[in-house]
Amino acid sequence: MSLPFGERLAQACHSAGAPVAVGLDPHLGRLPLDLQARFEGKTGRAHREAAAESVVAFCAAAIEGLAGRVAAVKPQVAFFEALGSPGVAALEETCRMAREAGLLVIVDAKRGDIASTAAAYARAALHPDGPLAGDALTVAPYMGTDTITPYLDVCAEHGRGLFVLVRTTNPGSAVLQHHGSPGLAEVVADALGRYGADPALVGASGMSSIGAVVGATASDEAVALRQRMPGAWFLVPGVGAQGGTARQALAGARADGLGALPVASRSVLFPSVDAPETHAEVTAGVASRALALVTAVAAVR
Amino acid sequence: MSLPFGERLAQACHSAGAPVAVGLDPHLGRLPLDLQARFEGKTGRAHREAAAESVVAFCAAAIEGLAGRVAAVKPQVAFFEALGSPGVAALEETCRMAREAGLLVIVDAKRGDIASTAAAYARAALHPDGPLAGDALTVAPYMGTDTITPYLDVCAEHGRGLFVLVRTTNPGSAVLQHHGSPGLAEVVADALGRYGADPALVGASGMSSIGAVVGATASDEAVALRQRMPGAWFLVPGVGAQGGTARQALAGARADGLGALPVASRSVLFPSVDAPETHAEVTAGVASRALALVTAVAAVR
Repeated sequence: MSLPFGERLAQACHSAGAPVAVGLDPHLGRLPLDLQARFEGKTGRAHREAAAESVVAFCAAAIEGLAGRVAAVKPQVAFFEALGSPGVAALEETCRMAREAGLLVIVDAKRGDIASTAAAYARAALHPDGPLAGDALTVAPYMGTDTITPYLDVCAEHGRGLFVLVRTTNPGSAVLQHHGSPGLAEVVADALGRYGADPALVGASGMSSIGAVVGATASDEAVALRQRMPGAWFLVPGVGAQGGTARQALAGARADGLGALPVASRSVLFPSVDAPETHAEVTAGVASRALALVTAVAAVR
Repeated sequence: MSLPFGERLAQACHSAGAPVAVGLDPHLGRLPLDLQARFEGKTGRAHREAAAESVVAFCAAAIEGLAGRVAAVKPQVAFFEALGSPGVAALEETCRMAREAGLLVIVDAKRGDIASTAAAYARAALHPDGPLAGDALTVAPYMGTDTITPYLDVCAEHGRGLFVLVRTTNPGSAVLQHHGSPGLAEVVADALGRYGADPALVGASGMSSIGAVVGATASDEAVALRQRMPGAWFLVPGVGAQGGTARQALAGARADGLGALPVASRSVLFPSVDAPETHAEVTAGVASRALALVTAVAAVR
């Protein structure tokens, strides 16, 4: 048995000085211009292969800037998959580099399937022998509790974790997540609270390996959802570029400060559009912006 | 502008004599033993590469047996992704082979994300220049209507389609999909009915490119959901191995017989466990079982 993911994350946040994860969203159009030049003008498979190489180069530089400064990275699978099999190879390489740099890897794939299909996703994303070997995976629960249960064994056995979508803050989310009374988000939260309470998934700090995605601008709801999932880590996207503040992002934390993991992506990865960086400048730029975020989050705590 | 996907699917079902899709779920443990022998004993990356080659060989043989006999194939992405980047390359090759064989390709990835992330998935799975270039994609709606809207342009422009999860029939599904009054499935169905009514997404037969996943054993509900989504194709998994009959699977069809697309996977791909096939026997076996399914579905209509 490995140390539960919830506990590993608590330790990583302690080492970094604050709970912060950085999303790895390699938008091709926001890469340094010298990296964009390597795939510009190419088409089809040649474009995808060259772009995937630039993505690896960018992520390597960003990871160097993040190592030792933040607890975790969250590669957004869609931006890699858009480049087909070369992009997935780039994702595998990015996960490997992050792991070797001592960063926890949260694979943001929002997978949501059941039975043998979910077991295949679990193997690919989380198993130590799998191609990604991530530390945690995001999961979409529309198909019900069967979308969660196939992952529980690999989480318990190998110290892996889940972040299940509970409350997102995009404009069209409320029609589903607030539907009914109690709202759907609360129903999902109750189920996660039950699964996450399994002693095989809980560490000494009381934090569980079964977490939830709770958007930064839903801070009032985050306080209420905490009651339903006392040991869950909340993965909190929407800090920075999407308008959430560090204070909002930490609203759902436990009284001892554990339990909320703010995620910033573009606001750390990329400089402002009128001050572009070259490939050589990425590591220092990312390190500087990550440090500013860690400082801001630590100040609120 | 291309012919809408809903219309292309209607024509493909007409040509095949009945609406049937076959799921491509290449479970490694169910492949012909001579194909399993090619990767047995290998580990790590070498295992994934050898297994991906066997998957391509199996899918090529199955596609040869399905060409001209069924309307569409539905590759289950998880089984390919479990093999990492070699598996995704195998998926790309499988989609290409199916397209060249004249089969519509429904990419079963159950993607569910928003904004630029969903746009990246749309590009990868559906765009004609993308690595998969599928005809349709399955989508999970937990994040709300924003999970659907980023796909609508590529669907209208390139004759592509969606199948959004509405009502699945796995044991744990009702806790979400029946939550509230009206139930969540009905709320999603109403949204799909609205999006799918856009004239850019509807063909001469009245069938829309925005479809829904509605499980075979929910046949009473399928009749009610049809009222909310009059032009939607229902992708109906659960025929055969999962216990649904052809009659149940067609329950949600329109009065003219259009609108329900039963999917069988393992019951067509694989023989019974006590009568294993060799690689050389796959094409004939798959063709024979597909023909039996098409005959059964045509008899109910």
